[in-house]
Amino acid sequence: MSDRYFMQTALKLALKGKGKTSPNPMVGAVLVKGNRIIAEGWHRRCGGDHAEIAALKKAGDRARGARLYVTLEPCFHYGRTPPCVDQIIRQGIREVIMAMKDPNPLTNGKSIAKLRRAGIKTRVGILQEEALAVNEAFGKYITAKRPFVVAKCAQTLDGKIATAAGHSRWITSLKARDYAHALRDEFDAICVGIHTVLKDNPGLNGKSTARELKKVVLDPSLRVSPYARLFRKVKPMNCFLAVTKKASWRKIKSFRARGVHVLVCPQRDDRMDLKWLLKELAKRGIVSILMEGGAQTIGQALKQRVIDKFHIYVAPKIMGDQNALSAVVGINTVNVNRAVRLKNLALQKIGEDILITGYV
Amino acid sequence: MSDRYFMQTALKLALKGKGKTSPNPMVGAVLVKGNRIIAEGWHRRCGGDHAEIAALKKAGDRARGARLYVTLEPCFHYGRTPPCVDQIIRQGIREVIMAMKDPNPLTNGKSIAKLRRAGIKTRVGILQEEALAVNEAFGKYITAKRPFVVAKCAQTLDGKIATAAGHSRWITSLKARDYAHALRDEFDAICVGIHTVLKDNPGLNGKSTARELKKVVLDPSLRVSPYARLFRKVKPMNCFLAVTKKASWRKIKSFRARGVHVLVCPQRDDRMDLKWLLKELAKRGIVSILMEGGAQTIGQALKQRVIDKFHIYVAPKIMGDQNALSAVVGINTVNVNRAVRLKNLALQKIGEDILITGYV
Repeated sequence: MSDRYFMQTALKLALKGKGKTSPNPMVGAVLVKGNRIIAEGWHRRCGGDHAEIAALKKAGDRARGARLYVTLEPCFHYGRTPPCVDQIIRQGIREVIMAMKDPNPLTNGKSIAKLRRAGIKTRVGILQEEALAVNEAFGKYITAKRPFVVAKCAQTLDGKIATAAGHSRWITSLKARDYAHALRDEFDAICVGIHTVLKDNPGLNGKSTARELKKVVLDPSLRVSPYARLFRKVKPMNCFLAVTKKASWRKIKSFRARGVHVLVCPQRDDRMDLKWLLKELAKRGIVSILMEGGAQTIGQALKQRVIDKFHIYVAPKIMGDQNALSAVVGINTVNVNRAVRLKNLALQKIGEDILITGYV
Repeated sequence: MSDRYFMQTALKLALKGKGKTSPNPMVGAVLVKGNRIIAEGWHRRCGGDHAEIAALKKAGDRARGARLYVTLEPCFHYGRTPPCVDQIIRQGIREVIMAMKDPNPLTNGKSIAKLRRAGIKTRVGILQEEALAVNEAFGKYITAKRPFVVAKCAQTLDGKIATAAGHSRWITSLKARDYAHALRDEFDAICVGIHTVLKDNPGLNGKSTARELKKVVLDPSLRVSPYARLFRKVKPMNCFLAVTKKASWRKIKSFRARGVHVLVCPQRDDRMDLKWLLKELAKRGIVSILMEGGAQTIGQALKQRVIDKFHIYVAPKIMGDQNALSAVVGINTVNVNRAVRLKNLALQKIGEDILITGYV
C-alpha cells in the first residue's frame, strides 16, 4: 500500500465528478491510517463539499492523526465554501499528501505554507502528471483565463470530411458518433461555425439530461436563424452568438431580447478575435469548449492559436479525391516543416474507427 | 506444452526466412517427442531445404515416432527439391500437425491424403490465422497469380503528402522513414509512378545489401531518363518499365538492349491495365510489391482493385490547406458510403509518427 496506490484511489474518486464540477476542478481525497483507508470523498458538483471536506465529514473524530491524500492542494480562500485548509488543521490531520499545487493564484502554495506552520507534514507531487491531465481544462482556464479548447474532426484516412459535393453522412461509424456524442458532456460548451449551422442545422445537444451543454456559434454577420435547431432544448442564456460589427443591430437586439448572449467581437486582420471571445466566455464560467467544426472554423482557431487539443476520429475509408473537403483549411502551410504539430499522441480504436488525440 | 506452443515456435522459425524465401512461402517446423522439441528447421532461402527437411535432417534416426509441427502443409510435388511428404513417411513420423493447407494447387490437400494413406495421423488448423498472415503475400500470389500489393503513403494527420507548391521533405520523422526503408526488404519489388520518378528521382533501393529489390516504374509514355537514379545499384534485369503503345519504340529498344524489362501494357478505359501488368510480373516470380506512390498511381491502382493492403504513415502534423496534395487522388468518391474501406486496421507508433495498416 504505497503513496501511489492511495493517490491513484483519490484520482479515481476525482473522476467521478467528471462533467459536473465546472468551473471547479475535479478533486478526490482519501484519509488513511496505517495501511487502511478510513474515509473517501470527492467533489461531486460545483457548490457542493470539496473532496477533503467530504472525506473529513465521513471520518469525523476518527480523522485525528490520519494522513490525507488529495489530488489538488486544498483551497485557501473563501469561495462558495470556507477554506478547506482550516478544516484540515481543525480535525488534527497528521500529514497531507498532494498530487499537485493548486494553479489557482488565490491558493497556489499558500495552503501548503499554512499547513506547515500548523505543524502538519506536507508532500506534493505524487502522480502529479496524472493529476494535471485530469484537470487539464481547469489548469488552462485558471492560468490563461481562457477555456481549454478541443477541436473535433471526423474524417477519412485521407483526411476528408465530405465529398467534393459536400456529402458527409456518415464518415464515422455509429459507435464512434455515439462515443463522440457522449464525450460532449465532459465539456461546458460546444462551438461551431455558422457554415456548419447553415449546412447541417445541428441540435448540438449533449447526451446527458442532467446538465445543459452551452452552445457557442461563431457567426460574424449574424446569419443564424432564430428557429435553428440549436436553440431548442436549451435555455437562451446558455446560447452564445459571437458576431462582429458586420452584424445587424436589429437582429442582435432581437436575440438579446430572447435572452441569448450576443458577444460583439473585435476583429484582427479582418477576422473575429477569438482570444478576446474566449476570455469573455471564461468570464462567464466556461472552462472547456469542444469545437466541432467546420474545417474553416478549426483552421481559423488553429491560426489564432487558441486550440489546445485535437480529437480526430478517423474512419477506415479512403475518398481518393483532391477536391473532397479537407478536415482543416485556411492555414495553408507553405513548408512541411512549419506545419502545426501535435504532441503526446494517443491512439484508441472505437469500433471500426480510430480516435487520435494530441496536444497542439 | 500445447499444440499452440509448438506451432507458435514453428511460426517464429518461419519468420526467420522473411525477405529471403520468395517466391516460396516462409515455413517453420519443429519435431516433438513427448513435451520436448528434438529438432527445428525453417526454409532459409528459395532453393534451400524446406523447413520439414531441415528438421528431419537434424533429427536423423531420432525422428522416428515423433510429431511434426509445420506451419504449412508439406509439399507434394517435385519442384526445386523432392516432395517433403515422402521424406516424412520415410523417417517414420507418427503425426503431422499443420497450421494450414498449402494453397498451391499443386499440393492443396494432396499431401494430407498421402500421409493418411501411409497411416500417419494429421491435423490442420492450429494457429491457422497467424499462418495465413505470415504468408499473406504468397497466398495471394499462388491463388490469384498476381503479386500481393501494399500501397504506402506518408502523410499528415489531415491526409496531405505535400504542400500546395509540392514541398514534401519531410512529412514523417527520420525514425519512420528508416522503418519504412527497412520494410522494403520484405518485398520482392518496389513500384512507383513516373511522376514520382521525374519529381524526386528516387533511388528506390532496399536497406539490405544481401538481395536486390526489383524496381517497377509505371511509365505509359516512357519518359524516364536512362540516367535516372533508380537504375543505379541494380542489375538491369531487376528493372521493369511498364509502358503503353504511347511509348516510343526506339526508346523501348534502347532500354531492352541494356537488359531492362519493358512491358507494353494493354489499356483499359485509356489507362494502363494493371491487372495484366501484375500477372506478367507474377510470371516473372514477383510475389509482393510495395507501391510507394504517388497519389495518382495509388488512386489508379485502387480503382483497378489491385491493392491488397495499405501502410499509411501518419505524421502528427496538420497542413490545414485544401490545396495541399492529398495522399490518394483520382477515385473521386461521390458518396461517403461508397468510399474505399479498409479492414482489420492495426495501429503502431513509430517514434512520433503512427503507422496504420489495413486491408482493402
